[in-house]
Amino acid sequence: VSAARLVALDWGTSSLRAFLLGADGRVLAQRQQPWGIQHLPTGGFDAALNDIAGDWLAAAGPVPLLACGMVGSAQGWHVAPYVPCPADLATLAAALVAFDIGQGRVLHIVPGLSHQRPDVMRGEETQVIGALIQAPRLAEHATLVMPGTHSKWVAVRDGRIGDFSTYLSGELFAVLRDHSILGRPQREVTPTAQADEDSPAALRAFDLAVNAVRRQGSATPLLFSTRALVLSGRLRAEHSMAYLSGLLIGDELRCGLSGRVDNAPLVLIGDAALCLRYRRALGAWADVAEPLHLSNTAVAGLWRLALQAGLVQGAGGADDDDSR
Amino acid sequence: VSAARLVALDWGTSSLRAFLLGADGRVLAQRQQPWGIQHLPTGGFDAALNDIAGDWLAAAGPVPLLACGMVGSAQGWHVAPYVPCPADLATLAAALVAFDIGQGRVLHIVPGLSHQRPDVMRGEETQVIGALIQAPRLAEHATLVMPGTHSKWVAVRDGRIGDFSTYLSGELFAVLRDHSILGRPQREVTPTAQADEDSPAALRAFDLAVNAVRRQGSATPLLFSTRALVLSGRLRAEHSMAYLSGLLIGDELRCGLSGRVDNAPLVLIGDAALCLRYRRALGAWADVAEPLHLSNTAVAGLWRLALQAGLVQGAGGADDDDSR
Repeated sequence: VSAARLVALDWGTSSLRAFLLGADGRVLAQRQQPWGIQHLPTGGFDAALNDIAGDWLAAAGPVPLLACGMVGSAQGWHVAPYVPCPADLATLAAALVAFDIGQGRVLHIVPGLSHQRPDVMRGEETQVIGALIQAPRLAEHATLVMPGTHSKWVAVRDGRIGDFSTYLSGELFAVLRDHSILGRPQREVTPTAQADEDSPAALRAFDLAVNAVRRQGSATPLLFSTRALVLSGRLRAEHSMAYLSGLLIGDELRCGLSGRVDNAPLVLIGDAALCLRYRRALGAWADVAEPLHLSNTAVAGLWRLALQAGLVQGAGGADDDDSR
Repeated sequence: VSAARLVALDWGTSSLRAFLLGADGRVLAQRQQPWGIQHLPTGGFDAALNDIAGDWLAAAGPVPLLACGMVGSAQGWHVAPYVPCPADLATLAAALVAFDIGQGRVLHIVPGLSHQRPDVMRGEETQVIGALIQAPRLAEHATLVMPGTHSKWVAVRDGRIGDFSTYLSGELFAVLRDHSILGRPQREVTPTAQADEDSPAALRAFDLAVNAVRRQGSATPLLFSTRALVLSGRLRAEHSMAYLSGLLIGDELRCGLSGRVDNAPLVLIGDAALCLRYRRALGAWADVAEPLHLSNTAVAGLWRLALQAGLVQGAGGADDDDSR
């Protein structure tokens, strides 16, 4: 590991992913643990970092560490205050927070972004930076969608994050499935198993819901139909959660698309299965072009931020001054 | 209790209310127990009925029994199949289901209503019948709103229930408060106490949310602001649930009002505190006239249905043929 240049950490609420990066940000090794900031092992942050990357650090010598995500929140290891929008690579890199974690090591933490609406994000700003590296033409004009527990819609223009919005879709789905009357039929049918969300019949239920939201203009008056359709025998219990998912994703798309400026090209970033579901739902909007899909771009973003902040050197020694 | 004419039961998911009615539907006695169909005492339906009304029945002799609500659902005591909309007093009375409960007694059960959208109700149809007795001019044209766990908006025209919609607002609020990240700040501040929802500051938070939904045209992009406002110090944790309540009630009103036909006069039916909250939220819509408020009208509805079905006789002996 003598070629190691950076230990990059994507440290969120539910998981910790560590990457050992070499010259040009090449991934030399990577590991993942379920040690999100709310699920730390005994010994807390120190122990988690030591366990996941201690051997890398011992072997690599004085390699810098850079982390993004909830690790920089008030519930995290050390606070990296939010940077207000609009913000770009230079703004973010200038606001990295350095934090002494002992044993002569410093952890650099990427700040989250805030919007005066108000809204906040932590971690997604780094994914946006990475996406603009992987697909540079997006920097001019794009809407980046990161589906998840708290989905983010990020408007990028001329290399800057100008605006963003958070949708509760993923968490809303989980609490309704697990705790409301809408989830009861499916809970009774498959108390332990995963819901059937990928069979042709489940996908038809999903499509039906997306189209209903698009026609109705809101999911609010349709939520209870998840139950009424089951009661009336028109929807099987095991497909009811696919239907609910269609209502919530459809409503997020309805709102997000209506807030897009100048029909900015859409990009989906994240988990392939979830992005595929969003792409399917987008099919209900005939005027929306097929979105690009990028996998998790946090590593690329962490490397680019480290370059910009001078924590690492680029191949030509010049990249670190390039804020595009 | 020799004057007793009817034992009327309003038997829902979470409570059982029993009324001993005399001539003209006058309430001679009433009792309430938390014995909804999902919280029955040992001995089940039989025991619950015997405990709450056994002495009335023993003293009153062969008095008829009429029940409305979830007691007639698939999870209830005996199924009273849904009657499809449109429906009126005569349709409902003709569809009462008689069920032998032993000891020579018959329980009559009011059917629920279904709409092909699909949607369903049980119990509210009886409240509508009661409301039209208490305020007869509503029969011509009105939108009756029954706030609650599953709020119902019922369109009445010429004495008939033509259309209705269910909103999940109450349940959505409860699951988000108890199980989502939105409720966490308030859960930490007041883990056991009730949230502060009636102080001037809490009411301001409620109003702020209602107005935001009215302006935005949807609560979906605003849900996460419940958290972001607390994080940014602009909303105190103890007022955050009043804010969330404003988002959800505001969204219900936005959808319900837009679905009203010909600006039908609004009527709020049910719990006084909750109806007051809805009335307050309606203030954000300058063009909506102050709504009438009626307390629970189920008793009046049960008496009227009993008259119509011939289970009891009216004062003049003629009311039972009047289907208006």
